[in-house]
Amino acid sequence: MSLIVQKYGGSSVSDAAAIKRVAARVAETKKAGHDVVVAVSAMGDTTDELIELAHAVSGGSHAREMDMLLTAGERISMALLAMAIRDQGVGAQSFTGSQAGVITSEQHGRARIIDVTPGRVVKAIEAGDVAIVAGFQGVSVDTKNITTLGRGGSDTTAVALAAALGADVCEIYTDVDGVFTADPRVVPGARRLDRITYDEMLELAASGAKVLMPRCVEYARRFNVPIHVRSSFSGREGTWVVAATEQGDTMEEPIISGVAHDRSEAKITVIGIPDVPGKAARLFEAVAKADVNVDMIVQNVSAHSTGVTDISFTLPKSDGERAIAAINGAKADIGHAEVRYDDAIGKLSLVGAGMRSSTGISAKFFAALRDAGVNIEMISTSDIRISVVTRAEHLEDAVRAVHTSFGLDSTDGEAIVYGGTGR
Amino acid sequence: MSLIVQKYGGSSVSDAAAIKRVAARVAETKKAGHDVVVAVSAMGDTTDELIELAHAVSGGSHAREMDMLLTAGERISMALLAMAIRDQGVGAQSFTGSQAGVITSEQHGRARIIDVTPGRVVKAIEAGDVAIVAGFQGVSVDTKNITTLGRGGSDTTAVALAAALGADVCEIYTDVDGVFTADPRVVPGARRLDRITYDEMLELAASGAKVLMPRCVEYARRFNVPIHVRSSFSGREGTWVVAATEQGDTMEEPIISGVAHDRSEAKITVIGIPDVPGKAARLFEAVAKADVNVDMIVQNVSAHSTGVTDISFTLPKSDGERAIAAINGAKADIGHAEVRYDDAIGKLSLVGAGMRSSTGISAKFFAALRDAGVNIEMISTSDIRISVVTRAEHLEDAVRAVHTSFGLDSTDGEAIVYGGTGR
Repeated sequence: MSLIVQKYGGSSVSDAAAIKRVAARVAETKKAGHDVVVAVSAMGDTTDELIELAHAVSGGSHAREMDMLLTAGERISMALLAMAIRDQGVGAQSFTGSQAGVITSEQHGRARIIDVTPGRVVKAIEAGDVAIVAGFQGVSVDTKNITTLGRGGSDTTAVALAAALGADVCEIYTDVDGVFTADPRVVPGARRLDRITYDEMLELAASGAKVLMPRCVEYARRFNVPIHVRSSFSGREGTWVVAATEQGDTMEEPIISGVAHDRSEAKITVIGIPDVPGKAARLFEAVAKADVNVDMIVQNVSAHSTGVTDISFTLPKSDGERAIAAINGAKADIGHAEVRYDDAIGKLSLVGAGMRSSTGISAKFFAALRDAGVNIEMISTSDIRISVVTRAEHLEDAVRAVHTSFGLDSTDGEAIVYGGTGR
Repeated sequence: MSLIVQKYGGSSVSDAAAIKRVAARVAETKKAGHDVVVAVSAMGDTTDELIELAHAVSGGSHAREMDMLLTAGERISMALLAMAIRDQGVGAQSFTGSQAGVITSEQHGRARIIDVTPGRVVKAIEAGDVAIVAGFQGVSVDTKNITTLGRGGSDTTAVALAAALGADVCEIYTDVDGVFTADPRVVPGARRLDRITYDEMLELAASGAKVLMPRCVEYARRFNVPIHVRSSFSGREGTWVVAATEQGDTMEEPIISGVAHDRSEAKITVIGIPDVPGKAARLFEAVAKADVNVDMIVQNVSAHSTGVTDISFTLPKSDGERAIAAINGAKADIGHAEVRYDDAIGKLSLVGAGMRSSTGISAKFFAALRDAGVNIEMISTSDIRISVVTRAEHLEDAVRAVHTSFGLDSTDGEAIVYGGTGR
C-alpha cells in the first residue's frame, strides 16, 4: 500500500464526462489498496471566464479580490470530483487550499508556498477517504487572505502535498504520455523518456518544454518527491522524474535527454553603451525594477576599441514594452545610444546530464545546425545544457536537425498528441 | 454616522452592469460618512447552473460537497462587487461566510446560524473599508465544514451580521419598493407600507408574502434589528420592519397590514380515522418523521356519532408524495380508510396587529368573501391573522375582495413591479 498524490489539470476535468473519467481512475487507485490525495485544477475554461467577468466589472487591478474570484474555479471542480468519486462507492472529501493547510506568502497572483500543514487531509485519509485538494491556491501566512500560486500552481500544490505527506509518488496527469525528447508536434519521431533527473527536467522546463513548470520540479527536487508524468487518457506508464542517484545506477543512461524549444521570447539589444565599469549593472537594475524576467545575456566585447559596447538579452515577449520603457527611462544612467527590439527569434536548447562527462557534444551540436543552414545569434550554456537563439522561421528545422543528429528519433512511429497542461 | 448592513440578492447582481450599479450605491453610502457591511447573494442564475453541473456529474446526494460547490457562487459575486466598489475610490474587502465568522450547525443545505464572530469584518471596517460578506453560507462549529443556510439564507446572513455588529439598520435591497398590502400583480391598487411590526411581517411571510423569509424576520425580532426593505433600482424609502413598541407610538396605525396569499400548498384529507384518543398523534408523528412541514390542521368532529372522523391539513405541494407514502405506511397504526390529495387550493391570510384590539374584523372578512362568492374550505387564526383555504381559481378574486373591503386600496394609481427576492 502506497500513499499516492494525483494531480489533474483543467483539460482532464473539462466537463461532466471528463470528471467522471477522472473519478473512475481515482476510485480504481483507491480500490487497489492505496491512499489517494488528489490536487485538481479548475475546469477547462473556468479561469478564463472568471477573468473575463472581472474585466467586464472592473478595469482596475485588485489582486486580493482577483484571487478570491479565481479560487472559485477549483472549488467547483473539486466538489464535483468528490461527488463523482463518492458515486463510485469510495469516500471523498474536498478541501480548499486554505483548509488543506497550503500556507503561502502574501503576493497575490504569484504566491510562494511557505509551509504545508495538511492536518485535515491526514484526517480524511485516516478515515479511509480520498482527499481532494484545490490546486493553485493557498492562504497567506500573515493576513489569512486567499492567494493563488500563479502559472504551474496546481502542479506545485500536488508536489508540496506529496512532500508534506511523505507520499510515495506524485502523479501528474496531463494530456500527453509523459516527457518527450522533443515537442512531437515539431519532431514526429520524438520519443517518450522513461526517466529523467530533476536537473535535466528543470533545464528542459526552463527552456520551453511545457509539460512541467520549473517551480514544481524545483520543489520536487528539494524534497526528493518522485514525479510520474502520465496521460489521463491512456493507462500507460509515463515519465518518472527522479533524483540523479536513482538514475545513475546504470551505465546505459542516455547522454542527451532532449531538445526543447521556445517561441515565447524576444531579444533586446542595447547599442552604444559606454565601455566603462558599472554600465551593465545599471542596465539590468533598471530592467529588474520593471519586474522583467531576463533569460540569456550576451555582451559583445568591442573589438575595435570604439569605447562603446552592445549588450543583448532575451526576455518574455509579454515583458517587452515594459523593459524598453525602463531602459529608456534610465538612459541618463546607462548612456546608451539605441534600443532594438526583435520578437522574431526562437530559442533551442539541448539538455542532458551526460554532457558533464562527454566530450564533443558542442561540436556535434553546432555541426548539426550548420548542416541545416541555421544561423546562430546568441549562445548560452550550463553544465547540462546548450542553448542558442536563431531566427524564428529556422527554429523547427533546427530542432529536427539536432534531434536527428543526437540519435533521438524514434523508430517505432508511435503517434502522439501533445498539448499544454493547464494551470 | 451609522453602521449600515446592506443585503443585495441575486437579481441585484445578475450581471456586470448590475454589479456596478450596486457598487455605486454602496460607495455613495460610504461616502456619505457611514460604515457599510454588504451581504451579497450569488449572481442571477449561478446557483441553478451549479446545481445543473452537479446533476450532470452525479445522481447521488452529497450534501457536504454540494455546499462546497454552491458557495462558489457568492465567492464570485462578492469578489466582483469588491472590485467594482474599489473602482469607485472606496476600499473594499470580501470575506467568505467562514472568514466573516458565520458559525452554523452541521446540517448541510439548511444550516442554522449558531453564532457570528465577525472579527475580520470589524477590522476591515476599522481600516475604513467596506466589508463584503458572502450571504447564504457559513462554517460548521464542530467539523469546520462549509455549510449553506438554505432558502432566505442571504437575508439571514445580513440580519445576523447586523445583530453581531450592533448595526443601526439592516437594509434588504430587492426588486420591489418594500412590503405591500397585497401582491401588486394580483391587486393593482396595493399600497406600500411605511412600517410594519416584526410580528405582522412574520405572519405575512409565513402566509406566502415572498419579500422576506420568516427565519430572517425571526432573527431580526430576537435581536431587535431594524430592517429596511427597499428597491435596489429606485432610491425611494421602502418599508421599515420594527418592534411593536416603536410602531405603537401613534394611535393612527392601521388595524390591518395586508393580505397575503399562497398557491404553493396542497391539502390532504385523511378519511375514516377511528374517533379514539391518540389517532391524530399517530397521524402527525408519521408525517413529521417524513420531514413534512404541516401548516393548517382541521378536524371535523363526527356529528353523527359514526365512530370515525376526518382530519385535513395543508402542506407544501413538494412534500405531497412523501406525506401520502408516510400516512399509508402507518395505516395499521392510524386505522384510516382513505387519503385524499388536493393541490387545487389557495390560501388567503389577513394580517394586522390591530386585530388584537378591534372587534368585527372576522365578520367583515367573511362577509367580503361571501359577497365575492368565494367558498371557504378551512379556517385557521392567530391573534393577528385569519387564514382561509379556498379553491385555487377563486383565490385572486378573494384577495381583491378582502383588500377592498378593508380599505387598503391605493388611490394614487402608482405602478409597481413585484417579484421574488432571490436567495
